[in-house]
Amino acid sequence: MLDNFFHAQSIAVVGASRSPGKVGYDILKNIIQYGFDGSVYPINPGAPEILGKKAYPSLMDVPGEIDVAVIVVPSKNVLEIIDQCGTRKIDSAIIITAGFKESGIEGSKLELELIRRAKQAGVRFIGPNCLGVIDTHSKINASFAAGMPAKGSIGFFSQSGALCLAVLDRALPDEIGFSKFISMGNKADITDMDIMLALAEDDNTKVILGYIEGVSDGRKFMEVAREVSRKKPIIILKSGITASGAKAASSHTGALAGREAAFDAAFKQSGIIRAHTLNELFNFALAFANQPVPRGPNAAIITNSGGPGILAADACDKSNLQLIPLHKEYVDELRTFLPPVASFYNPIDILGDSGAERYEKTLNTVIKDERINSIMVLLTPTAVVDVEATARAVINVARLIDRPILTSFMGKKSVEAGARILMKHGVPNYSYPEEMVSSLNAMYRYHLWLHKPEKNFPVYEGYREKAAQIFEKVKRDKRDRLHELEVHDVLQAYGFSQPKSLFVRTPEEALAAAKGIGFPVVMKIVSPQISHKSDIGGVKINLNSKKEVENAFFEITTRVRNILPSAHIAGVLVQEMVPKGREVIMGITSDPQFGHMIMFGLGGIYVEVLKDVSFRIAPLSREDAYEMIRETKAFPLLRGVRGETEADIEAIEKSLLVLSNIASDFPHIIEADINPLLVRNRGEGVVAIDARFTIGGN
Amino acid sequence: MLDNFFHAQSIAVVGASRSPGKVGYDILKNIIQYGFDGSVYPINPGAPEILGKKAYPSLMDVPGEIDVAVIVVPSKNVLEIIDQCGTRKIDSAIIITAGFKESGIEGSKLELELIRRAKQAGVRFIGPNCLGVIDTHSKINASFAAGMPAKGSIGFFSQSGALCLAVLDRALPDEIGFSKFISMGNKADITDMDIMLALAEDDNTKVILGYIEGVSDGRKFMEVAREVSRKKPIIILKSGITASGAKAASSHTGALAGREAAFDAAFKQSGIIRAHTLNELFNFALAFANQPVPRGPNAAIITNSGGPGILAADACDKSNLQLIPLHKEYVDELRTFLPPVASFYNPIDILGDSGAERYEKTLNTVIKDERINSIMVLLTPTAVVDVEATARAVINVARLIDRPILTSFMGKKSVEAGARILMKHGVPNYSYPEEMVSSLNAMYRYHLWLHKPEKNFPVYEGYREKAAQIFEKVKRDKRDRLHELEVHDVLQAYGFSQPKSLFVRTPEEALAAAKGIGFPVVMKIVSPQISHKSDIGGVKINLNSKKEVENAFFEITTRVRNILPSAHIAGVLVQEMVPKGREVIMGITSDPQFGHMIMFGLGGIYVEVLKDVSFRIAPLSREDAYEMIRETKAFPLLRGVRGETEADIEAIEKSLLVLSNIASDFPHIIEADINPLLVRNRGEGVVAIDARFTIGGN
Repeated sequence: MLDNFFHAQSIAVVGASRSPGKVGYDILKNIIQYGFDGSVYPINPGAPEILGKKAYPSLMDVPGEIDVAVIVVPSKNVLEIIDQCGTRKIDSAIIITAGFKESGIEGSKLELELIRRAKQAGVRFIGPNCLGVIDTHSKINASFAAGMPAKGSIGFFSQSGALCLAVLDRALPDEIGFSKFISMGNKADITDMDIMLALAEDDNTKVILGYIEGVSDGRKFMEVAREVSRKKPIIILKSGITASGAKAASSHTGALAGREAAFDAAFKQSGIIRAHTLNELFNFALAFANQPVPRGPNAAIITNSGGPGILAADACDKSNLQLIPLHKEYVDELRTFLPPVASFYNPIDILGDSGAERYEKTLNTVIKDERINSIMVLLTPTAVVDVEATARAVINVARLIDRPILTSFMGKKSVEAGARILMKHGVPNYSYPEEMVSSLNAMYRYHLWLHKPEKNFPVYEGYREKAAQIFEKVKRDKRDRLHELEVHDVLQAYGFSQPKSLFVRTPEEALAAAKGIGFPVVMKIVSPQISHKSDIGGVKINLNSKKEVENAFFEITTRVRNILPSAHIAGVLVQEMVPKGREVIMGITSDPQFGHMIMFGLGGIYVEVLKDVSFRIAPLSREDAYEMIRETKAFPLLRGVRGETEADIEAIEKSLLVLSNIASDFPHIIEADINPLLVRNRGEGVVAIDARFTIGGN
Repeated sequence: MLDNFFHAQSIAVVGASRSPGKVGYDILKNIIQYGFDGSVYPINPGAPEILGKKAYPSLMDVPGEIDVAVIVVPSKNVLEIIDQCGTRKIDSAIIITAGFKESGIEGSKLELELIRRAKQAGVRFIGPNCLGVIDTHSKINASFAAGMPAKGSIGFFSQSGALCLAVLDRALPDEIGFSKFISMGNKADITDMDIMLALAEDDNTKVILGYIEGVSDGRKFMEVAREVSRKKPIIILKSGITASGAKAASSHTGALAGREAAFDAAFKQSGIIRAHTLNELFNFALAFANQPVPRGPNAAIITNSGGPGILAADACDKSNLQLIPLHKEYVDELRTFLPPVASFYNPIDILGDSGAERYEKTLNTVIKDERINSIMVLLTPTAVVDVEATARAVINVARLIDRPILTSFMGKKSVEAGARILMKHGVPNYSYPEEMVSSLNAMYRYHLWLHKPEKNFPVYEGYREKAAQIFEKVKRDKRDRLHELEVHDVLQAYGFSQPKSLFVRTPEEALAAAKGIGFPVVMKIVSPQISHKSDIGGVKINLNSKKEVENAFFEITTRVRNILPSAHIAGVLVQEMVPKGREVIMGITSDPQFGHMIMFGLGGIYVEVLKDVSFRIAPLSREDAYEMIRETKAFPLLRGVRGETEADIEAIEKSLLVLSNIASDFPHIIEADINPLLVRNRGEGVVAIDARFTIGGN
């Protein structure tokens, strides 16, 4: 669909102006100036001609066909122009005009009407409130940016027009090449998803770069990104402040799902490489646009100085990359021509008196070692080194291999010309060694993503039906929390083991229940108003006798009545006292943009104090479940420390997947916790000791 | 002492050369070319004149006085030249020549001899194996660097000559100003400490910048840095690989003290601002060199675009800075001249159509709010904005206040001229908003350091004597571990509460002991070869009866005999079973560069699995003890979670201070752990349940 924008043969600028400095002038000028070779129609009721092009009073007066309308008229006139587009069968528009959603309530209304009218008219549009669109390959610069980026392979989209300007301005002097440059504005019609899909199909685009502040449909965004990231790397800078923000939380899962947890999970699950700063966005883009992705973690560093070599090695240490020594054979080869005091291992320090020739010989030896997946070349501007010749030496070698070479020619004055040679020939150069390493590491992480197995989302059939009537009843009752017993039945429906338990209303019933279950027992208050029972003394454990059970019944109910007089006490649950084991917590929370998320963490302190938890957007794949358990710092506790046996990690994985199914089956769930889920030793399964469910939509 | 170098009136270049490209030529040329106005004496036995200066066959032939000798002769001749310096009463030398410690064993020997001979001759020297020294204010460029930095206030020293070259080369085109530029080389005589002290006294230096790979005397380094950082900010980039590296560890403390823990602690304790990348080193230096330190965390952001404003706000969110709204009065003032759709809070978005005037008016309003401690100005290169005029507007305002203003004029092409104006007038500009924020944050952290109370190092008298004889006995016995009972006595000497305990050799004695102490008891193996008793089943707890005690004695000894047949079993310790409480661990470890470090963490899992520990170099101040407890993530457990009462945190602080005293009293301790130290509720103290000590030097 974006093809119409990028292969336009004729463009009308509605609101074209004769006054330099006006947006309607700048856009027209950019279209003409940067070599668009189709027809250009300025639309302006008061001008016969602008910038040498015949102007027309309205779209209706243009004689030929129009592929794209660029709209720069005041916001109040935009709807009318869209209608005209419909009449003229112009199906693509770029709405530069501001004054829509971004400007308040009136603007929001206008934007809704714009969306409706455009749909009616059959017009797809970019914007409103945007800077425009640039395609360097078809030479379209339908924007009011002050310049045209060099032709290249980076496709960039941005929710902020200002970021577009800054990126373009940063790119111009270094001739960093872009394929497309798309300012999305308010994303009222065409969104980041449409753009990612279009860039995925665009032969001129090798890497997709984006800046976003939020997404409209988180799940669809992930689906699209997951598909696209299998074909091309997507690097996104996401700013955080505007995201979901704080929200009331009635569960641990909810409280721990900070505003960034959802985006972090979504990016991870859909293969998006997250840039954390604008600088990183640039650095990563340069690497991906110019060099192949490494096929493994083994990197070699060649340097003409120790200090910078150490800085690079330190950075590798913090990355997924590893510096392995060359195979002995090649170390021996290095010895034949490097000075004896050189360092032959990795970083390979070829010393400060190196010229270009020594660099090239070393590189030619290093590339013979097929176990080396990537090469980094460091250069300090010594008096001896010929920077430009060394740049050419690097290029010569880069041409021979399909493994990535990145450089850090450090400094500025003496290395600028060399850096330009490198960049021109597709070897990205970084001023600082740490940035070189982190860019290479981003590529390696993308390699790992590409080689992940296809995701597998297990669906458990036959559970939903049993639980559905419970959720329906809660809804009918206009409650938002499930009772203790309802929670029990839902978990049972989904096959969770639970402690034997009986619901009782009197001390006598409690005693009978305890005898039936067998001592010792646990007793818990059952009240729809009480979610964290133990916090208010609503739980007694390890009750071993008639007397203890009777006392407990009395104590629990009295205590709750005192603390929360308004709570309705349905009764007490008498439960089997489950032997101790490792406790984990898993939960469902609901993110405004991505919907259900699943949380995992080790129980108690690990969750509450250390906040050592992991998140994934539901539904979970097997791999997600596998990874999120291992992502927590406390994971070794499940493996077993100090001679403990391993916990039943597979059963935890299965439970996470089942919980994810519950989330999918019941979209109305707002929050849920299974806390604790008791994990027995390997092969022995898990037991859901306690849980809570909150639903919405009432 | 470094004054001689920087105020030299006469310099001899020993090994001056007539051949361009040779170091001995480049240095002489640099000295002459960059305007040194004293006497210059090339020393070369074969040349009557070099670069227009009369040359002399040797130092001995120079008629006048010589303040500094720059030595470029081959390494084998350096000693002779040093001797000549002694004879000629030249007390300062810069030894450029390489081939010393850095080149292997022979070189190391030569360096030791050099140190000896220089001392004999009364010569202090920088190097060997260095690039030289630059002083922009006295116009001395006694280096072979290709250029002279602009005059400025950054004093830079580096252990790597290559880093010097890279930094200089990076600084030259942007005219970043330096006061001094010192390549330290092997630091055989003059060290980073001497240089920090000299720069602290140097009126031309405002900020001290350094690159180090290691330090020779960690404690002295800290002492000097602590003193200097009270006067001037010290920013250091420290690379890690070459540091202590892995080492065998017989205690948790040892195992957790990674190679970076000591430097991190040392920097923290001595007020050094650590740069984590070379880029950060530059960014921080620019801020400190040009702007005053903020007096509080409140920052205001003024921006002409939303996206970059959000990026900056995000970065603030991760920093110690905070964005507060202006006082209502000033918000109202902003409303009088900003467009109504501007954002009046913080970031203050003055919109994309802002010109320089709107920036200046906004700035003038913002500075009226005295609660705002610092200001950041963001600019996106829109078509409307006049970048240079805006730069001048910022400067006008910066002149009026003594609060810091930092800018991020984003992009490159359109902002370069403006950025240059800003930099020239002392307002540091950053290409990326995140870098601006982190630089301002570094300044704010320095402000916090400056306002920390003077450190207070409590010394506990009267304990040492009692413990000394124990350590002496262990030494006499040529053991490296203290026995269980010795450990007990040391802790007792220092006033640690311990469980009642009795050492026994037979089951009968064990029973009698248990009766004496009172059931239940704990029993532990006592063997000098066994350090982690519970790992091998050498501990039995909660023994409640005669039978259990007798069985335990049998089981423990048999088990240990089976697992470690070589271990000498001295007997068994019968101990009071201390009621449960919160457990912490504290320990002593020994870093090769900094000596004793003290570790703190919560016991068990928190230390072993989560590695949630903190370190400080001993001796600890009260503040160190206070901070290191609070630095651990698990700290809230000590405060009390889920209705628990607070643990006796003050008693932990005291224990850390006492442990630090033990470390100071017995320098031979290599490692020690008190693990666990049981912490009772507030006011009730702590009990050392178990501990181990390892000493060295046997």
